[in-house]
Amino acid sequence: MTDETVNIEGAVCAPPLPHDEQIVMGHGAGGRMSHRLIQQAFVSAFQNSALNAGDDAALVMPEHGKLSISTDAHVVFPLFFPGGDIGKLAVCGTVNDVAMLGAKPLYLTAGFILEEGLQMDVLKRVVESMRAAAEEAGVQIVAGDTKVVQKGKADGLYITTAGVGVVRGGVQISGANAKPGDVVILSGSMGDHGIAVLGARGELGFESSIQSDVAPLNHLIEAILDASKNIHVLRDPTRGGLATTLNEIAAQSKVGIILDEQTIPVHPEVNAACEMLGFDALYVANEGKLIAIVAKEDAEKVLSAMKKTRYGEGAVMIGHVAEEPKSRVLLKTALGSTRIVDMLAGEMLPRIC
Amino acid sequence: MTDETVNIEGAVCAPPLPHDEQIVMGHGAGGRMSHRLIQQAFVSAFQNSALNAGDDAALVMPEHGKLSISTDAHVVFPLFFPGGDIGKLAVCGTVNDVAMLGAKPLYLTAGFILEEGLQMDVLKRVVESMRAAAEEAGVQIVAGDTKVVQKGKADGLYITTAGVGVVRGGVQISGANAKPGDVVILSGSMGDHGIAVLGARGELGFESSIQSDVAPLNHLIEAILDASKNIHVLRDPTRGGLATTLNEIAAQSKVGIILDEQTIPVHPEVNAACEMLGFDALYVANEGKLIAIVAKEDAEKVLSAMKKTRYGEGAVMIGHVAEEPKSRVLLKTALGSTRIVDMLAGEMLPRIC
Repeated sequence: MTDETVNIEGAVCAPPLPHDEQIVMGHGAGGRMSHRLIQQAFVSAFQNSALNAGDDAALVMPEHGKLSISTDAHVVFPLFFPGGDIGKLAVCGTVNDVAMLGAKPLYLTAGFILEEGLQMDVLKRVVESMRAAAEEAGVQIVAGDTKVVQKGKADGLYITTAGVGVVRGGVQISGANAKPGDVVILSGSMGDHGIAVLGARGELGFESSIQSDVAPLNHLIEAILDASKNIHVLRDPTRGGLATTLNEIAAQSKVGIILDEQTIPVHPEVNAACEMLGFDALYVANEGKLIAIVAKEDAEKVLSAMKKTRYGEGAVMIGHVAEEPKSRVLLKTALGSTRIVDMLAGEMLPRIC
Repeated sequence: MTDETVNIEGAVCAPPLPHDEQIVMGHGAGGRMSHRLIQQAFVSAFQNSALNAGDDAALVMPEHGKLSISTDAHVVFPLFFPGGDIGKLAVCGTVNDVAMLGAKPLYLTAGFILEEGLQMDVLKRVVESMRAAAEEAGVQIVAGDTKVVQKGKADGLYITTAGVGVVRGGVQISGANAKPGDVVILSGSMGDHGIAVLGARGELGFESSIQSDVAPLNHLIEAILDASKNIHVLRDPTRGGLATTLNEIAAQSKVGIILDEQTIPVHPEVNAACEMLGFDALYVANEGKLIAIVAKEDAEKVLSAMKKTRYGEGAVMIGHVAEEPKSRVLLKTALGSTRIVDMLAGEMLPRIC
């Protein structure tokens, strides 16, 4: 692609133009400015032959098998928070959704909606964070699109990613596959992401060291699938938290899920923040945790395999699946009583991912 | 899924709640309101087994082959315009990009960013339009995601789609494959989409009957591929128009492209609007047209196959590929002179798709 700032013979190199320091509407118009943005900000960071080809779509050749396809729109506010940013979230969110059906995520696409006036170095930090997360997950960002909207829209930027992965042969994982007797394993502590984002908004009212748990979980999932052929459900408790995700699974599988409150790990600081704000940590979003529902005979094996991985060190068994009460989640509290854990009704924390 | 407005024995049916008539932040929080929105607005419209499964990702099983993967973010303003709307655009834009590499588009994902206060019936019209466009194209919308942002942030809604298709065996299509001697065929008139959107914004200053050309082009592409094994390039001249797209191809293929101005079809009304506004129709966006660059010996055959299809009736040969000038597009004008057609520099029409 020709670049109009190239230093041609006898010409004086032009000073950087304003549109090189921040996003202007012209970056979204599809012409030379758009091309330069795409080359400089995206293609140079995400480097792969499919993207470099510069065609309308990416050509890839995965091995044959069932494909797992997913998408996630990301509108988190603020863009940067302890432990992550919108770019890391956009890669990990889709990598994790693709992987939750027992697939190896391979390819991502990224659609950027940029706000006029966005500082170019903010965009570059976000893109670098996406690159690093994609590298850790072992996925390629093969296609993208960029639009620009007027100042005041889009809070800097929104990123929608989609992902494609190939499902491991013989694997049959779905939210509908939980069976009575199965054990519910959780990969770590609850609520870190939601509380970290609230902290970054200055809404906690105190200094907190809580970091978002945002992480790509596909390698953890590989370890789980290597450990057992009897994995029935994998799902990440993101928006709506553990409570909502388990309710979804209970409804899809038409089973009851019985939890033991004392076993569910929550950082003391997250607990303190939740108590102060009137939240329940079971409803707070996570971005680097998963629920595995596993045949009882393989539960110990799976747990021990999880504990050996970076993002599964804190894994614990938190409950089991029962015939009754169908489509319900019950919690045995520390006091010995039992309460129904319902799905989150409406809004608790908006713009969390 | 339990629905809390269900009429239980003895209870009086509740009046519709405000959150059923318009989008509120709670629709994006991942709880029961989100689930109801997804079921009522999306799953019921897009019906397919992968989506109905309700898992984190969709499981699909395409035949084996190279995959074509693409994505497009859509931020068009206004949401509805003569001939289409953001929903039809979001489906056709990605279907077309996937198909332009010679692939049969099969699966789409859709990420919705909804503005708080969006009327539910607006969302339903958009979704119905997506359903109809997907049906015409023969693709399934297999996965989706919904986020809600505060009033003022998203002009109603933004939609980012991604798509996956399987490339036809033996096909080798890329913007880098144009060869000297090839013929450049255009499927119809230029500039209709851009001018229709401007008209819908009230920026034309006169009443116009121009309709957007937004359409799924995958069936047209099948007809082209059936007609010839010597299709070198397929690309749709969207943002930046015919001029920018041909410049991309000339640069990718390192060839010159020589156009004959008199052969390029432009509706008289589009011409009039362009003259009045100081635009050049060659730079105005299209959403239902394609450029086919074809070996000379097959050009007549391809043209005649295109003319038999719904979206190729107006197809014409508009020029040819030459060794020189490399990476340049030249236009032989009606007056007999020749001018360089450059890539669009920055902004002409923002928020056009």
